[in-house]
Amino acid sequence: MTKIPRDRLNDYTNEAAETRRKFIKKRTGTSLSHVGNYSFDPSILPGNIENFIGVAQMPLGIAGPMLVNGEHAQGEFYVPMATTEGTLLASYSRGMRLTREAGGITTTVVDDAMQRAPVFIFENARGARDFGQWMTAQFDALKTVAATTTRSGKLRNIEQYSASKMLYLRFNFTTGDAAGQNMCGKATYAACKWIIKNYPGKISRYFLSGNMDTDKKHSQLNTLHTRGKRVIAEITIPRELLKERMRTTPEMMFAARMTSQLGGLLAGSVYNGVHSANGIASIFIATGQDEANVAESHASLVFAEITPDGDYYYSVTLPSLIVATYGGGTGLATQRECLDLLGCYGKGKVFKFAEIVAAAILCGDLSLGAAVVAGDWVSSHDELGRNRP
Amino acid sequence: MTKIPRDRLNDYTNEAAETRRKFIKKRTGTSLSHVGNYSFDPSILPGNIENFIGVAQMPLGIAGPMLVNGEHAQGEFYVPMATTEGTLLASYSRGMRLTREAGGITTTVVDDAMQRAPVFIFENARGARDFGQWMTAQFDALKTVAATTTRSGKLRNIEQYSASKMLYLRFNFTTGDAAGQNMCGKATYAACKWIIKNYPGKISRYFLSGNMDTDKKHSQLNTLHTRGKRVIAEITIPRELLKERMRTTPEMMFAARMTSQLGGLLAGSVYNGVHSANGIASIFIATGQDEANVAESHASLVFAEITPDGDYYYSVTLPSLIVATYGGGTGLATQRECLDLLGCYGKGKVFKFAEIVAAAILCGDLSLGAAVVAGDWVSSHDELGRNRP
Amino acid sequence: MTKIPRDRLNDYTNEAAETRRKFIKKRTGTSLSHVGNYSFDPSILPGNIENFIGVAQMPLGIAGPMLVNGEHAQGEFYVPMATTEGTLLASYSRGMRLTREAGGITTTVVDDAMQRAPVFIFENARGARDFGQWMTAQFDALKTVAATTTRSGKLRNIEQYSASKMLYLRFNFTTGDAAGQNMCGKATYAACKWIIKNYPGKISRYFLSGNMDTDKKHSQLNTLHTRGKRVIAEITIPRELLKERMRTTPEMMFAARMTSQLGGLLAGSVYNGVHSANGIASIFIATGQDEANVAESHASLVFAEITPDGDYYYSVTLPSLIVATYGGGTGLATQRECLDLLGCYGKGKVFKFAEIVAAAILCGDLSLGAAVVAGDWVSSHDELGRNRP
Amino acid sequence: MTKIPRDRLNDYTNEAAETRRKFIKKRTGTSLSHVGNYSFDPSILPGNIENFIGVAQMPLGIAGPMLVNGEHAQGEFYVPMATTEGTLLASYSRGMRLTREAGGITTTVVDDAMQRAPVFIFENARGARDFGQWMTAQFDALKTVAATTTRSGKLRNIEQYSASKMLYLRFNFTTGDAAGQNMCGKATYAACKWIIKNYPGKISRYFLSGNMDTDKKHSQLNTLHTRGKRVIAEITIPRELLKERMRTTPEMMFAARMTSQLGGLLAGSVYNGVHSANGIASIFIATGQDEANVAESHASLVFAEITPDGDYYYSVTLPSLIVATYGGGTGLATQRECLDLLGCYGKGKVFKFAEIVAAAILCGDLSLGAAVVAGDWVSSHDELGRNRP
Repeated sequence: MTKIPRDRLNDYTNEAAETRRKFIKKRTGTSLSHVGNYSFDPSILPGNIENFIGVAQMPLGIAGPMLVNGEHAQGEFYVPMATTEGTLLASYSRGMRLTREAGGITTTVVDDAMQRAPVFIFENARGARDFGQWMTAQFDALKTVAATTTRSGKLRNIEQYSASKMLYLRFNFTTGDAAGQNMCGKATYAACKWIIKNYPGKISRYFLSGNMDTDKKHSQLNTLHTRGKRVIAEITIPRELLKERMRTTPEMMFAARMTSQLGGLLAGSVYNGVHSANGIASIFIATGQDEANVAESHASLVFAEITPDGDYYYSVTLPSLIVATYGGGTGLATQRECLDLLGCYGKGKVFKFAEIVAAAILCGDLSLGAAVVAGDWVSSHDELGRNRP
Repeated sequence: MTKIPRDRLNDYTNEAAETRRKFIKKRTGTSLSHVGNYSFDPSILPGNIENFIGVAQMPLGIAGPMLVNGEHAQGEFYVPMATTEGTLLASYSRGMRLTREAGGITTTVVDDAMQRAPVFIFENARGARDFGQWMTAQFDALKTVAATTTRSGKLRNIEQYSASKMLYLRFNFTTGDAAGQNMCGKATYAACKWIIKNYPGKISRYFLSGNMDTDKKHSQLNTLHTRGKRVIAEITIPRELLKERMRTTPEMMFAARMTSQLGGLLAGSVYNGVHSANGIASIFIATGQDEANVAESHASLVFAEITPDGDYYYSVTLPSLIVATYGGGTGLATQRECLDLLGCYGKGKVFKFAEIVAAAILCGDLSLGAAVVAGDWVSSHDELGRNRP
Repeated sequence: MTKIPRDRLNDYTNEAAETRRKFIKKRTGTSLSHVGNYSFDPSILPGNIENFIGVAQMPLGIAGPMLVNGEHAQGEFYVPMATTEGTLLASYSRGMRLTREAGGITTTVVDDAMQRAPVFIFENARGARDFGQWMTAQFDALKTVAATTTRSGKLRNIEQYSASKMLYLRFNFTTGDAAGQNMCGKATYAACKWIIKNYPGKISRYFLSGNMDTDKKHSQLNTLHTRGKRVIAEITIPRELLKERMRTTPEMMFAARMTSQLGGLLAGSVYNGVHSANGIASIFIATGQDEANVAESHASLVFAEITPDGDYYYSVTLPSLIVATYGGGTGLATQRECLDLLGCYGKGKVFKFAEIVAAAILCGDLSLGAAVVAGDWVSSHDELGRNRP
Repeated sequence: MTKIPRDRLNDYTNEAAETRRKFIKKRTGTSLSHVGNYSFDPSILPGNIENFIGVAQMPLGIAGPMLVNGEHAQGEFYVPMATTEGTLLASYSRGMRLTREAGGITTTVVDDAMQRAPVFIFENARGARDFGQWMTAQFDALKTVAATTTRSGKLRNIEQYSASKMLYLRFNFTTGDAAGQNMCGKATYAACKWIIKNYPGKISRYFLSGNMDTDKKHSQLNTLHTRGKRVIAEITIPRELLKERMRTTPEMMFAARMTSQLGGLLAGSVYNGVHSANGIASIFIATGQDEANVAESHASLVFAEITPDGDYYYSVTLPSLIVATYGGGTGLATQRECLDLLGCYGKGKVFKFAEIVAAAILCGDLSLGAAVVAGDWVSSHDELGRNRP
């Protein structure tokens, strides 16, 4: 079997991409002509992909305008969303119209932390406990060591979790405008080497990840202690507006929420939100976020209530929203355009972007929630998703 | 504020897309020239997106070849993966090389079901219980009703879950080669209307979703009872091969797995897999799957052991893998090319595709697992992800 | 070191108990005079304990009367509760008074199942899948085999759960008036031996428990599919009564519930009830239930709402309440007296008893809930729990 | 309906108890003669129960001797266990014999905290965030306020969890030798009153519990951050001893553990231990612990491995063991005798007692684990639990 030579993995040229497409054509008979239709110079790609052959052309639409009354995001925004799921854009837009007419969405970033979580193993639990006490005393030294590896990452605190003869550590960093998983990995790796060298006791073994960073998977720990940004979007929808625009009432919306909340609890659902994954995946793909982080970022906690005036208060808390406006895929061609149209590309923009994402999720929740209640969910999917088999 | 007229939502022409891009340019100052670079006729888009403005160009690479000994997928496959995360393609390819040299991956589809889960509310718990008994007796009638709405969806069984004065139902369908959420929605909606008309007792209220379908979110229920395909990938890696290719041993791999498994349990992580979200998101985007379904599909149960011969048995069970080879985004330009190169586009291909996805996840798990153990995880990210801040 | 001879384990006489107490006195210096004060003939004890030395004297109080409008329990009941926690009896009694004045509690048993869950291991996932298909076809045969081991247990259905090369089975039985874990164990063991003998394929290994019975621990599976009885208690408390008796309003109660429900979700709490463990533990100890089953039985799902008339609807669903009125500890001296006073000892009484337990839990929830809201929680503990340090 | 007058709730005399028993006799026809057989003066009961009528006589046995190599518990212990479940004592004793012959169990207390968790509600999320920052600055003041209410409780730290417009706080205390829920409640209540008085901003509302103490229920948060004592028991069982005493091997034990661990994960079981609830409930009832705390305390994390020498390392981590050697029910008649025989009654004994409980749980785990593997689980229940129906 002929294979693409390994030394060509990083050959980021049009020619290399074409050679690979031809190779695939020869091996599988499939011509990748649409895949080969990209508009950027592949030399921008190192750090984003290997074995480059072209692009997935994911349909992109624009939702909004959405009115945000954030601390970082203020005013109306058109939100780019990449999707192949009919109705999604229409539904989010509907929610954006509702919230705009209600006066806009209040957004607040309340926490910020990215992790790498090594584990140290000892002869027994006492060894692990002693190590934990030593670690507490070394924080300043470790902060200094970590700082040697990154300019934008700052070690914030180190959580300790004890089980059996292990001590699981969770290094928390702030990472500026980058998502920061890699910088956390490097900084923590440096810290671990320093620990191995300096700890006076006996460490049996260590691993750079003991899985308590819970990278690429949902966890209760991330819901509790934040991974990425913890951001909250809130709004109060006037009763009359809800009736007029969504053909439902606060009471009906709330009754459906209560019922589905119990259904989710019964199902062992990991959170009580509606469908945040839709909005997050679409915006992540559009703006060059790490698309796999939907797994962690889609956690959402909803709290709603009918106000004494009979209006509908609705809030979405995203406890582990991993976003970046710098680094990763944010600088790629279409991705940067999408961040630019939000005014969110580059340094100093990540909280603004986090607020926009949270606001959008809230809009999607309200729209789908109302559709389920008003009974037009199936009919609108039927209308807008009509090529579905 | 000028807004895009609602009657233009479904105007799928190049002109409409350009008009929208110009509108965005005018409103935000951002020129969307890369976004406007797509190679297909937008008239294929109805059912996939609204407010179309162009495409996200997501870098696409090719991993493999991967050797699969499935019941539906047999032979070597080059796997298209769309990502912006450096190292991902290289890591999955490394795992594919390892498993190919080990003789290939055994894959098995063990279950198949898609859901819509309405909830019916009664005056009290007894009303809900009586309704449940009646429902059990109506299964054949409901199957007939559901069948009037879809050719490819077949009602398989209806689960009942009781709490308070509610009865939560979970309609399970097989959906052929489509993911099938919409066909399940329509069929269940028809069933609900039939129920409302025919139930002799008093129903206080019903909602088409009571949230026990757990659409777009992870749940224990989906892990137990399957959502989409339940597919298992297995392999035994010879000890010597592991040592040679991955610079580690079954014992070290297993020790790291045990430690990280406890870390995951401690963290309240929703499953014990490694990083399935990476592979699933990348393949989903490449092949036109619903990208938000990463939330449900990334659940993975790993079971590993050292064999009596000292080799390393490793298996990945994906209990809720939502995939399609027909409908949704599968027929779009690059998406179809990517399915074609796997020999997975169209009718009769969905189990083959499910097997390929599961096999790929296993490769990624082994590669990352070995990297963490061998200590080259950070260094390889440093090398291949070098534009990260 | 002298040890109690193993052949004396089952010596259920006063002399044997005294010999053991003297031995303890000699070894530890502690005189067990209160422990030795029991009022029954130890010859009733085989099947309940080994190495008998006497009794724990657990203070017993009486709560109520509680008014139940059940299908099996009807009328007023005085509920025996054994506890060492001050305030508990007073609080449950307060709730019983409230619900009695509100017209009584409606109770409904909606499901009934006890499990033993063996696991069968195969060469690979396909072996497990084939076995599952074979098992489905053998149900009648297995039911017959199971029936040879028990008169009161009936095999109801067998769930199958697939992961890796394993098939986890969950044998569901109805068990009459016994809790039934042991009869399920025996019947399933017989079934497993029959399977091993009759399965034409190759089984690598099996274990009588693969942990999906989830004996002695809470699980989502038990919440979904019932372990023991699934029983629901409901009531609507008139607004004025709530104000008069509990010094609070439906709105305040509901607001506190919403807030604490989100707190529980955030904490990764296993259910959204209030403090069912208090009532369950106390009644279980009083009535000879297996006291360790508090772990499984304390799961409770609460659904509450303010009615259109402004009253407070409150319901408790206990999805995995393991109770017996026959066998186990139910026939012991004080235990039987306590069952007798409820009219719940012996055959044909278990649903009645389940309804009483659920009703009591509801009373405790309402009382504590109101205390937290009205601010008299700390003060009443201070008054009634005053020997606490 | 005649009711026991409320002013008699606290009438702790033999006469009052007898009056109540006669009342029950009259109302229900049930004579409570065994219940009336207690050997202590009821005047010791205030703080432990209301509406006292007598005692539940729970059979008590003695397991052991168990050899503990703790930091607080050292030497051999006879463990009192109250139960009505046949086989339990025999099984724990079997595990104690095994571990004694293996050289004893190493135990380590690694953390200590009891909580009360109020929630404060604000106009919006920013209000909650501002309050959190203020709270951080007030820690010393709050510690002083809390200290005014209790001698033995010390405020250790206050966790903050943010969601929607709420800030959930978790006040962590050390509580000396008491379990301490009530002292934490009082101290936190005082702190809350101080907060309400001193916070310069606007608080909409607060509740003394927002449910993140997760009182009387299992939660992931307690597993992560400890509730009560966090204590670890470890042992290495020599291969030959395991074979001789338990008729099994480390490999078989480990294989069963791996399989049942996956079964538990699949079931959504809350921890990966075996049956800690059995040991904990039995010891709790014997020694006057709050019996409802089995719900929180039964969480157990098991980590096992086969050592390079082929022996079996096994550890149990109890992350939320709520125990006391002073206050609550510990001073009652038989309860104190049971604590005394362990040398664990009174001040300065709580860590010793926590170590003994953890060691016992480990013994029960190993014994049951071996029984399942060796296939004598059903037969021994059949022999020792023979009055079961």
